[in-house]
Amino acid sequence: MSVDVASCTPLVRKALTAEQAADLSRVLKAVADPARLRLLSLVAAHEGGEACVCDLTEPLGLSQPTVSHHLKVLVDAGLLTRDKRGVWAWFRLVPGALDALAAALSTAGSRDAAPSSG
Amino acid sequence: MSVDVASCTPLVRKALTAEQAADLSRVLKAVADPARLRLLSLVAAHEGGEACVCDLTEPLGLSQPTVSHHLKVLVDAGLLTRDKRGVWAWFRLVPGALDALAAALSTAGSRDAAPSSG
Repeated sequence: MSVDVASCTPLVRKALTAEQAADLSRVLKAVADPARLRLLSLVAAHEGGEACVCDLTEPLGLSQPTVSHHLKVLVDAGLLTRDKRGVWAWFRLVPGALDALAAALSTAGSRDAAPSSG
Repeated sequence: MSVDVASCTPLVRKALTAEQAADLSRVLKAVADPARLRLLSLVAAHEGGEACVCDLTEPLGLSQPTVSHHLKVLVDAGLLTRDKRGVWAWFRLVPGALDALAAALSTAGSRDAAPSSG
């Protein structure tokens, strides 16, 4: 049930359809959580851009099952990859996924890119 | 209780603190809703980049109180301005707010901007 973040429609180029808004909100709901934002941030900042649950529980101060749940939400949203090696699963950012989400929110290229005052 | 979106800390430059993650998630929660994404999109696409509730209820298929509630959430999140003129309040995008949110999610400038494969 992974989402293709790159297919999300830019918000302000023209009015979103209900379906486009539902797709984009699904990815945004996945990131709109303090623990999941910190997980994305910790994974990105970790050595090699990769981290396992064992690296993430202590900095977050959350239990391993809770961290695993949040990681699953981020994998399902198409924002993290999961690679099982031995005992642990290793997570890294899906290349381009956060940038695609950022691009969907950006007004660059729209008539609102340089709004006039007043 | 408006949020200063521009002050949100970029996600992937280095690991977010709990407070930074809470600030960013608050703005993301405001946009992580299909109706509110469509409202932002409709306001941006409307003539002059400005719309009143009267312009927004029909395209969304929602009641005026529901649309007004969603608009208030977006104003409180620092994403829309509200200007009362006569009978109606008029809404427009806060210049730069969506772009600041996009910048907080973007990996541009981080070591993950051009991730290697594997």
